[in-house]
Amino acid sequence: MHESTFTIGLLGCGIVGSGVVRLLRAHSDEIAARLGARLEIGPVAVRNTAVDRAVEVPGLTADAHAVVSDPAVDIVVEVMGGIEPARGLIAEALTAGKSVVTANKELISTLGGELLALAHGKGVRLEYEAAVAGGIPIIRPLRESLAGDRVRRVLGILNGTTNYILTKMTEDGVSFATALGEAQELGYAERDPSADVEGNDAAAKAAILASIAFDARVVAGDVYREGITRVTATDIAHARRMGYVIKLLAIAEDYDGEIGARVHPALIPAGHPLASVRDSFNAVFVEADAVGELMFYGRGAGSLPTASAVIGDVVTVARGLLSGERPANGAAVTAKPIRSVGELTVQYYVLLDVADEPGVLANVAATFGTHAVSIKSVWQEGQGDSAQLLLITHAAQERNVQATLHDLRALAEVRDVASVMRVEGGEV
Amino acid sequence: MHESTFTIGLLGCGIVGSGVVRLLRAHSDEIAARLGARLEIGPVAVRNTAVDRAVEVPGLTADAHAVVSDPAVDIVVEVMGGIEPARGLIAEALTAGKSVVTANKELISTLGGELLALAHGKGVRLEYEAAVAGGIPIIRPLRESLAGDRVRRVLGILNGTTNYILTKMTEDGVSFATALGEAQELGYAERDPSADVEGNDAAAKAAILASIAFDARVVAGDVYREGITRVTATDIAHARRMGYVIKLLAIAEDYDGEIGARVHPALIPAGHPLASVRDSFNAVFVEADAVGELMFYGRGAGSLPTASAVIGDVVTVARGLLSGERPANGAAVTAKPIRSVGELTVQYYVLLDVADEPGVLANVAATFGTHAVSIKSVWQEGQGDSAQLLLITHAAQERNVQATLHDLRALAEVRDVASVMRVEGGEV
Repeated sequence: MHESTFTIGLLGCGIVGSGVVRLLRAHSDEIAARLGARLEIGPVAVRNTAVDRAVEVPGLTADAHAVVSDPAVDIVVEVMGGIEPARGLIAEALTAGKSVVTANKELISTLGGELLALAHGKGVRLEYEAAVAGGIPIIRPLRESLAGDRVRRVLGILNGTTNYILTKMTEDGVSFATALGEAQELGYAERDPSADVEGNDAAAKAAILASIAFDARVVAGDVYREGITRVTATDIAHARRMGYVIKLLAIAEDYDGEIGARVHPALIPAGHPLASVRDSFNAVFVEADAVGELMFYGRGAGSLPTASAVIGDVVTVARGLLSGERPANGAAVTAKPIRSVGELTVQYYVLLDVADEPGVLANVAATFGTHAVSIKSVWQEGQGDSAQLLLITHAAQERNVQATLHDLRALAEVRDVASVMRVEGGEV
Repeated sequence: MHESTFTIGLLGCGIVGSGVVRLLRAHSDEIAARLGARLEIGPVAVRNTAVDRAVEVPGLTADAHAVVSDPAVDIVVEVMGGIEPARGLIAEALTAGKSVVTANKELISTLGGELLALAHGKGVRLEYEAAVAGGIPIIRPLRESLAGDRVRRVLGILNGTTNYILTKMTEDGVSFATALGEAQELGYAERDPSADVEGNDAAAKAAILASIAFDARVVAGDVYREGITRVTATDIAHARRMGYVIKLLAIAEDYDGEIGARVHPALIPAGHPLASVRDSFNAVFVEADAVGELMFYGRGAGSLPTASAVIGDVVTVARGLLSGERPANGAAVTAKPIRSVGELTVQYYVLLDVADEPGVLANVAATFGTHAVSIKSVWQEGQGDSAQLLLITHAAQERNVQATLHDLRALAEVRDVASVMRVEGGEV
């Protein structure tokens, strides 16, 4: 039997792109044996052909359109990132009837819906496993393995940089600034770390996960977002004493048809499977009706882990081409209402600096009670004439918690509402 | 557009089968929206139609062949278990050009190779996600998501019963017999628990994982196997003191083309992601060249978790039918040599009852040294005239360890080699 070959047109050859080239070459024979066909790197579009590459690629060109329209190219892999020209090129490829594999979370989390509709209309595939949680298989399991189940909630640690920073703060007791500095030295964090530490990166990924888990169209802008810049070593120490660790969580939930999507630091019980996800690792924890709890753990970034996910998608596309499939419509995606964070019912951790005098606890507790926010546990620690009061509430209406905080700030005995953070992952 | 319907012929309607029926009914509309087609339960074959079912099914019959050959049946789901008649019925369905979904680990781990070859020859699918680790997506991620990577090692906690027993022994300090009794009371363990506690169940699953991870044909009989019946509360307490927990591990490894596959209790570092897999949960830890470490965690058994995996497979098959695919050949499976356990290089934990007198440690250490087994850590504990000596070795040739143990038993000062267990998951 004559062995067929699929030629890949590569858009971008940076960290991920060079990983794709390296991996395809290193595993060339095994992939051919698995697939029954060869995968070959064809033309490669880069912005500047004069720049040195981490890998040698023969077919370098600055003309990305030529790569997409090259009749020899069977599958287009987009690893350039950003919205344009990536969007236009992908649309061009799909329109020409070519399946596309992308690692572009920014694009998929904003304009993924229209590109997927285009792919379905053309009977080709648009795959993007690498766009969320790097090398961890999560898109395909959600879409295929759980197709017969009903996902209720997805909790993710989706940003390796912030997880590294929080792990350092937790294990070494250092400040946010020190941990960030270490992350920058190790190359885990950018010089301008805002996309990571403000939660934007995780929010884009949360939007993609929510869209798939709930057959909805959720875009990055729908995701409520708080970063980790205000998390202190004190918060972490207090959390630990109460049996929790602090993580930056991406949360997607289905409230009977309304979708909640948010990214914020949260306390989670130390015994929760997500609590032991350390360093720059990522994990996605899924709660579904039939299967119960699932967790997927691994490397969320890096050249080779991300390339591994990209090539997994390429092999899937190639298998489809070999089988003569003409992919049918995707899931019927519906525009579902987004539930605002103010409408949520969540547990809270509150840290107060208070005067160390009789009656303070009673007044504080009464303030919570007035707003129907029930207190689950309290921890008081005196320091001379002032004291710290730590409270964890039971699940309560967000707006009631906000009203409580407002009134607490007005109490004479409360010198500062030092910290406020949500508690996730079930009651301890 | 006219909505198509796929009719499922169900073979078996016990714990898993009734879960499939319940789940398909409960999620009927969502599945139809995702798939663009309806899935319907058609005829259901059971051994005895007079027995009460957990669910009501109209088309009950004792004639399984009639279900398979029914022209109205598009997809066959086999959840009866055992080798025959399951094998014959599946072969019949595949031969007739019908794709099959099965949860049958016993069958797939022994005769899966020939059935898969038959499916490939006929251009249909044979899916078996539910056969390993119940509701956890692991077959598809290994086969598809990691198709561009090179898996080196798979470590699994694949049997919920034994994991429950070991968790009880660890957390409550009870004996094996007590923990087993509790597991039996809760319905986690059978009256005759040997398939679980002797490791047979895990070995079948290990064979399936090894086959997929390494494109090899590994059958249950190739898997070296030790159960947990000799693990004592003392072992667990000692392990903990040295920073380890004890788990029943299924291990599949690729030694440059030779496959190792084994199931045995092992000490793993308390910080390893598998160490925190508690109760009856399962997990599969994968080490691959590009992606690094991955872990998949969830429910390994139970009616609904297993049914969730079965229906995920059914949806995949139905999508393929809708797309007009004719699945191409699977991976080129090769018969790879199995490396015997005696050829392995592993770390060991050894517990000795010794006389508490001068020179004992020196003699014991010299015995290890004679056989080129290097000691990593030692812990001695006196009790009157006798003492316990705990040793953890560095990685050493299995045969050298066995020779060491042989000589230790002959030492006058060594009253008993009380326990010997492998150490996995990296050096602490």
